[in-house]
Amino acid sequence: MLMNFKFLAIYLFVLFTTILSLPVIADDGYRLWQRYDFVQDQAKRQAYLANLTGLVIEGNSPTLTVARQELVTGLAGLLGKPLRLTSLNTAGVLILGTPQNTSVIKNLNLAVKLTALGPEGFLILSAQVQGKKATVITANSDVGVLYGTFHFLKLLQTNQDITQLNISSAPKIQRRILNHWDNLDRTVERGYAGFSIWDWHKLPDYIDQRYIDYARANASIGINGTVLTNVNANALILTPQYLVKVKALADAFRPYGLKVYLTARFSAPVEMGGLKTADPLDAQVKTWWKNKAAEIYSYVPDFGGFLVKANSEGQPGPQNYGRSHADGANMLADAVAEKGGIVMWRAFVYDNKVPDDRAKQAYTEFKPLDGQFRKNVLVQVKNGPIDFQPREPFHPLFGAMPQTPLMMEFQITQEYLGQATNLVYQAPLYKETLDADTHVKGAGSTVAKVVDGSLHQYELTGMAGVANIGNDRNWTGHLFGQANWYCFGRLAWDHTLSSEKIADEWLRMTFTNEATFLNPINKMMRQSRETLVNYMTPLGLHHIMGYSHHYGPGPWIKDKQRADWTSVYYHKASPEGIGFDRTVTGSNALAQYAPGVQQQFGKPATCPEEFLLWFHHVKWDYKVKSGRSLWDELCQRYYRGAAEVGQMRQTWQAAQAYVDAERFNHVKMLLLIQEKEARWWRDACVLYFQTFAQRPIPAGLEKPSQTLDYYVKQDPKFVPGN
Amino acid sequence: MLMNFKFLAIYLFVLFTTILSLPVIADDGYRLWQRYDFVQDQAKRQAYLANLTGLVIEGNSPTLTVARQELVTGLAGLLGKPLRLTSLNTAGVLILGTPQNTSVIKNLNLAVKLTALGPEGFLILSAQVQGKKATVITANSDVGVLYGTFHFLKLLQTNQDITQLNISSAPKIQRRILNHWDNLDRTVERGYAGFSIWDWHKLPDYIDQRYIDYARANASIGINGTVLTNVNANALILTPQYLVKVKALADAFRPYGLKVYLTARFSAPVEMGGLKTADPLDAQVKTWWKNKAAEIYSYVPDFGGFLVKANSEGQPGPQNYGRSHADGANMLADAVAEKGGIVMWRAFVYDNKVPDDRAKQAYTEFKPLDGQFRKNVLVQVKNGPIDFQPREPFHPLFGAMPQTPLMMEFQITQEYLGQATNLVYQAPLYKETLDADTHVKGAGSTVAKVVDGSLHQYELTGMAGVANIGNDRNWTGHLFGQANWYCFGRLAWDHTLSSEKIADEWLRMTFTNEATFLNPINKMMRQSRETLVNYMTPLGLHHIMGYSHHYGPGPWIKDKQRADWTSVYYHKASPEGIGFDRTVTGSNALAQYAPGVQQQFGKPATCPEEFLLWFHHVKWDYKVKSGRSLWDELCQRYYRGAAEVGQMRQTWQAAQAYVDAERFNHVKMLLLIQEKEARWWRDACVLYFQTFAQRPIPAGLEKPSQTLDYYVKQDPKFVPGN
Repeated sequence: MLMNFKFLAIYLFVLFTTILSLPVIADDGYRLWQRYDFVQDQAKRQAYLANLTGLVIEGNSPTLTVARQELVTGLAGLLGKPLRLTSLNTAGVLILGTPQNTSVIKNLNLAVKLTALGPEGFLILSAQVQGKKATVITANSDVGVLYGTFHFLKLLQTNQDITQLNISSAPKIQRRILNHWDNLDRTVERGYAGFSIWDWHKLPDYIDQRYIDYARANASIGINGTVLTNVNANALILTPQYLVKVKALADAFRPYGLKVYLTARFSAPVEMGGLKTADPLDAQVKTWWKNKAAEIYSYVPDFGGFLVKANSEGQPGPQNYGRSHADGANMLADAVAEKGGIVMWRAFVYDNKVPDDRAKQAYTEFKPLDGQFRKNVLVQVKNGPIDFQPREPFHPLFGAMPQTPLMMEFQITQEYLGQATNLVYQAPLYKETLDADTHVKGAGSTVAKVVDGSLHQYELTGMAGVANIGNDRNWTGHLFGQANWYCFGRLAWDHTLSSEKIADEWLRMTFTNEATFLNPINKMMRQSRETLVNYMTPLGLHHIMGYSHHYGPGPWIKDKQRADWTSVYYHKASPEGIGFDRTVTGSNALAQYAPGVQQQFGKPATCPEEFLLWFHHVKWDYKVKSGRSLWDELCQRYYRGAAEVGQMRQTWQAAQAYVDAERFNHVKMLLLIQEKEARWWRDACVLYFQTFAQRPIPAGLEKPSQTLDYYVKQDPKFVPGN
Repeated sequence: MLMNFKFLAIYLFVLFTTILSLPVIADDGYRLWQRYDFVQDQAKRQAYLANLTGLVIEGNSPTLTVARQELVTGLAGLLGKPLRLTSLNTAGVLILGTPQNTSVIKNLNLAVKLTALGPEGFLILSAQVQGKKATVITANSDVGVLYGTFHFLKLLQTNQDITQLNISSAPKIQRRILNHWDNLDRTVERGYAGFSIWDWHKLPDYIDQRYIDYARANASIGINGTVLTNVNANALILTPQYLVKVKALADAFRPYGLKVYLTARFSAPVEMGGLKTADPLDAQVKTWWKNKAAEIYSYVPDFGGFLVKANSEGQPGPQNYGRSHADGANMLADAVAEKGGIVMWRAFVYDNKVPDDRAKQAYTEFKPLDGQFRKNVLVQVKNGPIDFQPREPFHPLFGAMPQTPLMMEFQITQEYLGQATNLVYQAPLYKETLDADTHVKGAGSTVAKVVDGSLHQYELTGMAGVANIGNDRNWTGHLFGQANWYCFGRLAWDHTLSSEKIADEWLRMTFTNEATFLNPINKMMRQSRETLVNYMTPLGLHHIMGYSHHYGPGPWIKDKQRADWTSVYYHKASPEGIGFDRTVTGSNALAQYAPGVQQQFGKPATCPEEFLLWFHHVKWDYKVKSGRSLWDELCQRYYRGAAEVGQMRQTWQAAQAYVDAERFNHVKMLLLIQEKEARWWRDACVLYFQTFAQRPIPAGLEKPSQTLDYYVKQDPKFVPGN
């Protein structure tokens, strides 16, 4: 949405004189949290204007240029007045730059402060410069200045005071990366927001404005990398025909500090190189990948590296040749090391043989490899040991590989979270994992400290989010899906931020600064994930959704190609009880956790109720903390979840006055769908589990309107993302 | 983009008082030709305001409601001032309604004028009403009033005088229908603007704003029907699970006079009905379709009917059971007749046996069936006898079936016209076919007169356009693709309109009323199709594009599953010459035309040069009208076409001052791609045909930069729409 800078002044002039050249246009959500709408509070606006009398910027690197464009565009929208380039003679100027490129900043002697902030951190200071009051945005690098610029704009967007600024901020994690599971035909695996935003056919010559706005949005929340292609990889992306397209995207993203990564198909040396093997210890294979990496770097000099899914769900990998994951990862790592590239090797593996408990497999395979990986390898681990369920305990690998940097993989796209029709704010989910205590170095050894490197002194750190972005006009299908993109970026930057704080920022920038809107909607967002857990998988249930497309309930799924692709494998409901015994009497997956965790989770009485059926097979009459039987509690939770969606609808209805008609109706219609889907989950699951429990639905709860058979026969076709 | 009417006044008030609540936003083309931007010419604006002091509207039908909303929204944008509902006391009011619902209109005694305009025509008059000057928009039906409303808004958008209006307009063709080749998984066969705008998964509960804006755009150009699904049909659309979604779309479209049609899979009685046959003469099959039609009408009371592709390219049909196309069409026609439904039966057929000349097949199969179809059947015939080539002679069926209404099928999506990266304005192509003279009732028996029913007194008339619409933000992929959607609608309403006039309307509404912009861009548009013919298929060449995906040149395509899916089948290049002899010495396809046409096309000397190689196999040294040899002329045309794209780039560059940056750059980038593709076509075709002609590329023309082998080896992957 950025206009050419030089036209902006003319544009604003024409605009303000004619005033009315305005389409009566509702809002389609395209602008994300970067709306830059006019500040409605006049006092605040005047205060901002007084502190923004002009802009001083030296240097014209591509990154500083886009920072300046963003400021000029953003402030024009927020304040209704163009910000002019000026000199230092006036009070109230805004100064942008690094000590290296801006002498007045150098003279402020910020070296000590800046050193602590690393290559991407920034300072925003209210300062006296040459005897005049000024605001300074500075950093050790241009991209740090850009991050500071976005932060500064956010201060205005969220109506903060800017007269006494002393802000310093640096990312806690180095690689903050989106994973796009986008195929070259523009379908998106597990994508629910239309199709891929990468229009490969028109690249390299057509640079869609979306690419720029995508980079702007990412930079505004500190995301600094993007894996363009699906982990179920196609080797074609590594051909010159496609590398020239990758280069075009990398060029478009570079000013915004956004690096491009690709997925590597492990069998590429055979498929496209004509080799007889892809054995990672084969000399020809090593050479092939070294040459391929060199070729990629000739197109993209700052190419970030490879993300690899190997020996999992049918993907080729080193085990095809009797080699280990470390052998495979190291071979690729050597190929990109010279240019500073990294390899992100996914721990989400399961082989063709169904193990006794799929939850154990990643740990079983990777733990023994600790210490065997090259320094430029990150092992990328999903937040939980199964697969992005509404709730999982933290993955047992976190804390278990002190010599191997582990990268967190969250899923932003809502594969198991109602897809694009359910409003689910995921910061509480991410936070729950990050704040979980691994106990590996005693209490307080949180997952966050593993991932940010502070627990084991990792030299390389990273966090990945599987993107929920598509070519829907509003990017994420559900408007509130934008909040998940947003909170992923914010938490990758600073995992200590609260879910409430992040929601507050997002809501203010996306809708309004009115407290009567913010308070109830923020609360609704924070509650939404627990609501979803209740109507889908309460009490530690997991993986009971529809087969293959993962849409809607499917607790009855059984007798499929693999046992661990069924639901009955996970819930193990029987006339006696329900749940997966992962203690020593069962699969003993619990043994993969530190003793401190084992103690807590090992007994039903001490196990947090949200993980009860994850770790224990529990009798239907078992008394839970509420005093109810397990069966009654299960029913109550399903009903509560569905009822809470009804309350969400009311909450949203009450917010109508604060939202334009198009976005209001968008969310309203989706909440209605969500309520239908919540009831579908509730009724289908309660009726199904009742066939085992053989107990009545507790008094006071309405009876499902359909029979179990009706739900079992539901067979949705053409579910997106499948 | 329409806002809720009751909020508009408040909205405008807030807007005009705060003035600046304006996002700095570039233009993504979403608004099509319905931008309603502020009228820049102050004198004109004042004149409009003086003649629009208020709005008088009685009746509140859904259609009149959307007409009012459109007026209020449109005039607010155009004039910067809300139009208020008022009484008749003031001079300069605008009165909207039918004589039936509005007494002041009834008193104007317009019955004679209105009767001539039929159910959809309209009048716009400057009149004295109760002694005061007023503007009246009236019709026999609410939808006629809506069409008049859009026409009136166009007068302002295009800066016309509105003080002395006396406009009457009625459509020349009854059914003006878009065909969406959209699959239920949202891929679009031959779609180049992203994916389907029908988000089936979220229907029926989620009504995307796009559906409303789609209906508005269609209504504004008089399109009154839409076939939602691909002619290569999926029977699933006929299940209750999908019919409830179809109903939701029909309900959204109904106020705009837009009827819904579906494609019928001929084998549905077997696939979903459990019958053993789909034989159209079988009693059970007839009953099944009658019941199915009744079921559809229970969801959509004004369902338009079925479009059928049968016994063509693998689709099932009546010939599977030894029955004729008439048997199949009539069976379906009987099923929908009671409720006023129609059947559009496509004449684009070819069986598994390759005929001596595919161009002959439709005529051969359908001509003998003339008179055998029910009254509610239209036979839908492509404009030319092959398949939407850059240039074809008119289809020989036009004029050949006096007892069977023939519906024109144009292709708006650019399957063979450079897809979404080429700027090709298609009005000249459509007009060329419509104005072609069939000679069946003597000179002047144009195709247009066949299609509008005037030549053979058809009771039912129709024109179909295969839509170029997808979920790209600008709807059509290429911004200028919007002009093809626009011109299809305008020509379906009135085929006598000139290409220039239609382009002028579209350009004014889409860009600006500045003559210095309009003149060169209009000229560029009108030339663009001939330019494309020159760099793709000059002198009557056809069907020499890339295999299957139809992208890029492929004159070397041979040895495929079917001969008529190859290029060599059509161009028949040899060391002696080139071209398909369709005269009596060849396939004699020419015999399917009337004698008057045969005389003209039958000899190379009299055959229009644009059809020379369509009808004749011509020696390389044959002297064409320019005095050049055929070979030299062929080369000159290929080079001229490519050079003209370079000129288009210059023309566009000169228009920069009149277009916002985003749309300007969009077109600029695509023109660069088009130039590359034009050169690709030119070089590949000239080098390939040179292998037969064995003659040099004429002096003065630059040599191709690559060898023929290079072009033959090009193998684009993941081409859209395939």
